[in-house]
Amino acid sequence: MNILIINGPNLNLLGTRDTGTYGNETLPDVENWISKTFPEHNFTFFQSNIEGELITKIQETLTSQIDGLIVNLGGYSHSSVALRDALDPVLIPKIEVHISNIHARESFREQTITGSVMNGIITGFGKHSYLLGVQAVEHLSKNK
Amino acid sequence: MNILIINGPNLNLLGTRDTGTYGNETLPDVENWISKTFPEHNFTFFQSNIEGELITKIQETLTSQIDGLIVNLGGYSHSSVALRDALDPVLIPKIEVHISNIHARESFREQTITGSVMNGIITGFGKHSYLLGVQAVEHLSKNK
Amino acid sequence: MNILIINGPNLNLLGTRDTGTYGNETLPDVENWISKTFPEHNFTFFQSNIEGELITKIQETLTSQIDGLIVNLGGYSHSSVALRDALDPVLIPKIEVHISNIHARESFREQTITGSVMNGIITGFGKHSYLLGVQAVEHLSKNK
Amino acid sequence: MNILIINGPNLNLLGTRDTGTYGNETLPDVENWISKTFPEHNFTFFQSNIEGELITKIQETLTSQIDGLIVNLGGYSHSSVALRDALDPVLIPKIEVHISNIHARESFREQTITGSVMNGIITGFGKHSYLLGVQAVEHLSKNK
Amino acid sequence: MNILIINGPNLNLLGTRDTGTYGNETLPDVENWISKTFPEHNFTFFQSNIEGELITKIQETLTSQIDGLIVNLGGYSHSSVALRDALDPVLIPKIEVHISNIHARESFREQTITGSVMNGIITGFGKHSYLLGVQAVEHLSKNK
Amino acid sequence: MNILIINGPNLNLLGTRDTGTYGNETLPDVENWISKTFPEHNFTFFQSNIEGELITKIQETLTSQIDGLIVNLGGYSHSSVALRDALDPVLIPKIEVHISNIHARESFREQTITGSVMNGIITGFGKHSYLLGVQAVEHLSKNK
Amino acid sequence: MNILIINGPNLNLLGTRDTGTYGNETLPDVENWISKTFPEHNFTFFQSNIEGELITKIQETLTSQIDGLIVNLGGYSHSSVALRDALDPVLIPKIEVHISNIHARESFREQTITGSVMNGIITGFGKHSYLLGVQAVEHLSKNK
Amino acid sequence: MNILIINGPNLNLLGTRDTGTYGNETLPDVENWISKTFPEHNFTFFQSNIEGELITKIQETLTSQIDGLIVNLGGYSHSSVALRDALDPVLIPKIEVHISNIHARESFREQTITGSVMNGIITGFGKHSYLLGVQAVEHLSKNK
Amino acid sequence: MNILIINGPNLNLLGTRDTGTYGNETLPDVENWISKTFPEHNFTFFQSNIEGELITKIQETLTSQIDGLIVNLGGYSHSSVALRDALDPVLIPKIEVHISNIHARESFREQTITGSVMNGIITGFGKHSYLLGVQAVEHLSKNK
Amino acid sequence: MNILIINGPNLNLLGTRDTGTYGNETLPDVENWISKTFPEHNFTFFQSNIEGELITKIQETLTSQIDGLIVNLGGYSHSSVALRDALDPVLIPKIEVHISNIHARESFREQTITGSVMNGIITGFGKHSYLLGVQAVEHLSKNK
Amino acid sequence: MNILIINGPNLNLLGTRDTGTYGNETLPDVENWISKTFPEHNFTFFQSNIEGELITKIQETLTSQIDGLIVNLGGYSHSSVALRDALDPVLIPKIEVHISNIHARESFREQTITGSVMNGIITGFGKHSYLLGVQAVEHLSKNK
Amino acid sequence: MNILIINGPNLNLLGTRDTGTYGNETLPDVENWISKTFPEHNFTFFQSNIEGELITKIQETLTSQIDGLIVNLGGYSHSSVALRDALDPVLIPKIEVHISNIHARESFREQTITGSVMNGIITGFGKHSYLLGVQAVEHLSKNK
Repeated sequence: MNILIINGPNLNLLGTRDTGTYGNETLPDVENWISKTFPEHNFTFFQSNIEGELITKIQETLTSQIDGLIVNLGGYSHSSVALRDALDPVLIPKIEVHISNIHARESFREQTITGSVMNGIITGFGKHSYLLGVQAVEHLSKNK
Repeated sequence: MNILIINGPNLNLLGTRDTGTYGNETLPDVENWISKTFPEHNFTFFQSNIEGELITKIQETLTSQIDGLIVNLGGYSHSSVALRDALDPVLIPKIEVHISNIHARESFREQTITGSVMNGIITGFGKHSYLLGVQAVEHLSKNK
Repeated sequence: MNILIINGPNLNLLGTRDTGTYGNETLPDVENWISKTFPEHNFTFFQSNIEGELITKIQETLTSQIDGLIVNLGGYSHSSVALRDALDPVLIPKIEVHISNIHARESFREQTITGSVMNGIITGFGKHSYLLGVQAVEHLSKNK
Repeated sequence: MNILIINGPNLNLLGTRDTGTYGNETLPDVENWISKTFPEHNFTFFQSNIEGELITKIQETLTSQIDGLIVNLGGYSHSSVALRDALDPVLIPKIEVHISNIHARESFREQTITGSVMNGIITGFGKHSYLLGVQAVEHLSKNK
Repeated sequence: MNILIINGPNLNLLGTRDTGTYGNETLPDVENWISKTFPEHNFTFFQSNIEGELITKIQETLTSQIDGLIVNLGGYSHSSVALRDALDPVLIPKIEVHISNIHARESFREQTITGSVMNGIITGFGKHSYLLGVQAVEHLSKNK
Repeated sequence: MNILIINGPNLNLLGTRDTGTYGNETLPDVENWISKTFPEHNFTFFQSNIEGELITKIQETLTSQIDGLIVNLGGYSHSSVALRDALDPVLIPKIEVHISNIHARESFREQTITGSVMNGIITGFGKHSYLLGVQAVEHLSKNK
Repeated sequence: MNILIINGPNLNLLGTRDTGTYGNETLPDVENWISKTFPEHNFTFFQSNIEGELITKIQETLTSQIDGLIVNLGGYSHSSVALRDALDPVLIPKIEVHISNIHARESFREQTITGSVMNGIITGFGKHSYLLGVQAVEHLSKNK
Repeated sequence: MNILIINGPNLNLLGTRDTGTYGNETLPDVENWISKTFPEHNFTFFQSNIEGELITKIQETLTSQIDGLIVNLGGYSHSSVALRDALDPVLIPKIEVHISNIHARESFREQTITGSVMNGIITGFGKHSYLLGVQAVEHLSKNK
Repeated sequence: MNILIINGPNLNLLGTRDTGTYGNETLPDVENWISKTFPEHNFTFFQSNIEGELITKIQETLTSQIDGLIVNLGGYSHSSVALRDALDPVLIPKIEVHISNIHARESFREQTITGSVMNGIITGFGKHSYLLGVQAVEHLSKNK
Repeated sequence: MNILIINGPNLNLLGTRDTGTYGNETLPDVENWISKTFPEHNFTFFQSNIEGELITKIQETLTSQIDGLIVNLGGYSHSSVALRDALDPVLIPKIEVHISNIHARESFREQTITGSVMNGIITGFGKHSYLLGVQAVEHLSKNK
Repeated sequence: MNILIINGPNLNLLGTRDTGTYGNETLPDVENWISKTFPEHNFTFFQSNIEGELITKIQETLTSQIDGLIVNLGGYSHSSVALRDALDPVLIPKIEVHISNIHARESFREQTITGSVMNGIITGFGKHSYLLGVQAVEHLSKNK
Repeated sequence: MNILIINGPNLNLLGTRDTGTYGNETLPDVENWISKTFPEHNFTFFQSNIEGELITKIQETLTSQIDGLIVNLGGYSHSSVALRDALDPVLIPKIEVHISNIHARESFREQTITGSVMNGIITGFGKHSYLLGVQAVEHLSKNK
């Protein structure tokens, strides 16, 4: 399967800040680890701090040959109606992941505006949230 | 009159998604249709998914020869204080339009933060919201 | 087309109070101006300060030969469930207009309970809101 | 018993709109059906779309020979302090009925301001809500 | 002075219900008592249960020879934007009175939407609230 | 008809506490009275203070030969999502009753979470709420 | 009658600040004017900026020969549970006055915590609010 | 690994109600499918509709040889402080799963009180949510 | 005196979890310590994790020879209307205790729904909250 | 032990007002009764209606030889951030008491801002709340 | 310049409590340090725990020769309408300072009622907040 | 010191709009003025209307030789969780400034989401807010 993994604001800093919570592997490290863990899939990775670029990238899934979409939109998950509108018409399996448990942090992180238009949400498993996201794409693809 | 029509996030997808609600004409189709409907005006069209680029474009109306501004800011209408601050000092006729009726959808779409600094708002008439926006510019211009 | 324009509470005072905001044309002046602007349509005008009479008049559109309904319900827009229930079953093009921009005034005017069952809303263009309302009826009629 | 049944805004349209929810019997049909179902009682029926006329009619029960009051105040139930004040001093059995289940619709219908001064409330049984209302009057009268 | 005293919903029942709180004098009794207490003024009295009729009566003060306006709008004080809009342009001394203390009852009576456009409010002094209202008109008239 | 009547927490104390409000008949007394009032029906009665046992009993209606369900869930009505989920798939006539008027007590009793998935609600008629519940089952059964 | 008039925080500045709203008479000027207007009464005046001193003064009315109490508690009216507790057991006529209309200013001035334990409230009549307060004491005393 | 999977209220009905959403496999079917999918683990399954029995079962993990805990608490997730208190001291990997996406349903399902004390949450993947839960236990166990 | 001490959910774990906060004495240890501290009283102890069993036990005080009731309802204190309804008719001294200070923890623990029908509440004194509860029963018994 | 008992606003009136609720013993009576009940302790009593004097007195415990602090801050408990800040650094046993049950009165009394920085709270036991407060100091002192 | 620096409740304890956050310099230490840092200015310092004394001191700036006002009102900033009313008419440069960052503590400290009538606010810089306050007075004085 | 000053949306318009509030100096004017006022420091200036570019610039401080960070994030301060997440790991002195007093404008400007992770906030001093920001960096640097 062709799987697109989109990371939003501040995830480019993975491994360089707050390593107690997020571990000390960088985003490229994590991306390589995902690719190696699932050699049977073809991954495309994208990261941007700019909300509009994330929207544009999500829109590409409407016309490209992508079989599954995994997004970690960071702080934009909690406030962006525009990202929600971009994700809404996506018809392939689409999954929102978070590295930390958004229900165990500040109250403004508990609500996810984008989450309501996703197939499902996986939150709290560190970098393994991405692996579970891939496994969820596999499950959803089999059942279509 | 020189009229600038700015479209915000996801409106570049017009005609390709949710065609039941939004029709199957693309954004260029709609832009052409507007131009042809009002051959007496000179239109400039701009679309971006990036909030900051929309702000920059709106700021240009302060120094360029634009006689009327029509904006459809999509999901940013409901949360962007920064766009509101950009629209506030605009002195030419300025109108917010929405394709669907924002008062008949999810409750988080009912409030428009940008709308409070506009001359007026037109919501719910499909692509005709743009035509009504142009007609509103005409009315406001006559009465200045 | 036969178009019914209903004005609600206090709009009978148009032209006699708060003329800075509302202009100094009376309601009959505005009604004549609408009729003259669109000689191709047949207009019926109705005004009442009484909520229940407005309900009754709206109900008449269910059985009479009216092609379009334009309502300016004034202060009742923000609180009347009963008017909403009257407007809900109306199947002809139905448009809510406001003379001033309801999003730029007191916060209790921002929500419109009736607006959620209308085709669309036009707010903030002075007496031209009515003209735009008629033009909106024209657009909606063509697209049925 | 002399029983007064008061219907509020839009209930004069019964049988002519939203027949899927409300059935296709008109208000006079329903009123006749109530009378025939309970030939042992003497019914008076009243309907108005005007809040103040409903208040005046309710006030009449204070001085007339009415043994039971059944009201369906439609959209006014959810906002009218004035109707509540009119119902409060009524000492005969007084019952609020609704055709649809007000707890299963929009959230603004869940609260009933008038309901807190009634003996009881019956909601959700279609036209049979009226029959149950009459039966409730019977129960309350026996137990006085 | 010509003083108009407007009473709203349910005040026509004065003296016949809840006499513990409101006393056992009827509205005509109270009106006579006011007239006799202030023989130097010329009073007009108006009562209606219908919100729109109250609006219409208030509007008359804009064109008639009235020197002072006293209103007791009962339950409509707490919810009516339309009555507020009617009172707003009134330029003569205008005073809202309540027989009972609205701050010592249910919480929904604490807010008065109409009160914010009045000169002042007098609440809680039984029928003497009207006398104090007349005296307030006198004070305001001297100081214009 | 086979009718199941389920009573929730504290209703086993009927007749022994707060007899001013609830009367001095015990729950078995009331159950006998219901059976005798409607000798044409076959009643099953169930009471539990345990939320989960009430859920389990409600679930039985999915597979047993029950023609109508009447529930008085007491304090659980106002907070239990789990009971709501149990009642939601029930397809036979299902009615929520309350002995006292839940709209005339503390504000936390006004909302009924379970009520939104019922056919209808009857509240405020003392032990007669049960009789009206049976009569409501009769009405709903005839109209299926 | 012996009447105690208590003024709270910032009212010692009367006549020296915000004279557009409050006039240019000082607090002693106003106190003299009250005394002269009602030569038949014996007035005691007290002012303090300190909440606790106001409480202590109010408590004195429980044991001294005071026939009526008028308080203008300024900003403390909107937040002080302690002042409310001090006023609650006062049994003589007790009236809260405000110089400006508290319902026409910031929303945090609309609620009066102390007002709910007073006989009544008079707000918005400038220094005449005090005169009306005295007249209210007279009315309440006659009716005891 | 020894893994305990606890299912809460109404999940015993899996496969018999709302099969469009939940599929037509029963809870034993799903449990067998989980066991077969992961033959390398030893599963214990528990289901109860009773909140207190779920608490007691969760407490057992404190003293028994369980390596991972997966809970689907259904409607209790959204309101139960007591279940949260039971889950809080659990030190083995603990995961909350939901079959449907709780962020895409009624607003009262969006908050999970229990979720804030879990390692992570997986919501929206049908019966595969359980599989992902097991895989999450595996990930968390490796990283301890 | 016969004193019944009821402990709710998770208190059976006392001494085995979160020993920093709750100490390392088990519930039986604490119960023995209470009995020994007050040899002059006869104690009955009850613990359950099941809300309905707690209700049933509380109901027993209505008919048994109990002179005082002390309850620590744990997480149920903050949400259970049903437990409140069970405690309301209890006429013997009834006291709610909490081991930790509920006002110094998460905000959802600050409100106690059951507390409003108790004689008093003691919170924050560790296991000594029970001793103070017994002493409070003694005080209340003397003053009856 | 040296124990300081601080009473806040209106508690100087104990025994002279609202004797049904508060008893007819004066504050000195109660203070004497406390001293006599615990002859083994050395009590200091302080009362003030002035918030700032209460703050200053509480601050003295930081430098004087006080072993325990009991405060009844009356109406200030519910709003005073400044008193909370004064109590926060106090390291000796500190207990908040209330004579009446603050959870059984107006909703604005339910929250205690000061309570969150105390060791514990005792509310609802009349004058015995003070005795229980002393006993709580004893318990806390033994366990330090 | 003559600069008045007013410190409110609990700031007299500076240097003696919570020294981790507030440092171990006493208030006189800080005041001396300010004076020495700006020898070109003439400082007056005032501290009180009593809200009313703070009000009175602020009022003095209206008539004395003060060129700049710096206030740290501690816990009163978040609730005192009376202090806001005292600060409102002050026309000289007026600045609110806080030692800690009020936006990074409990949520009830985030709003400052007094701050809305100040020229500006400086929060979070320890004792240097005072220095910045003086520098702000200098800037504002130059630009008048 | 190397100090980075970041300006967010619409601050590029400084000096060209709303000059009554913001003055008529352009952003480069202000930047030059800052540099000249503090010749001992080395300033880098950055402005963008794009949220993501601001995030990226803030991230650079983690790896570059910057000694102090001053940000004026304009409208993004009030809503951007993503900017907060970018600022959180910054360890050098970091200060938020605003030209106008955010506590004296619309209520949606009162909360600053980014402010809670800053050292401190300076708001309301016009362009001098930047100077005070630099001075605050100096203070914080000395005290590290």
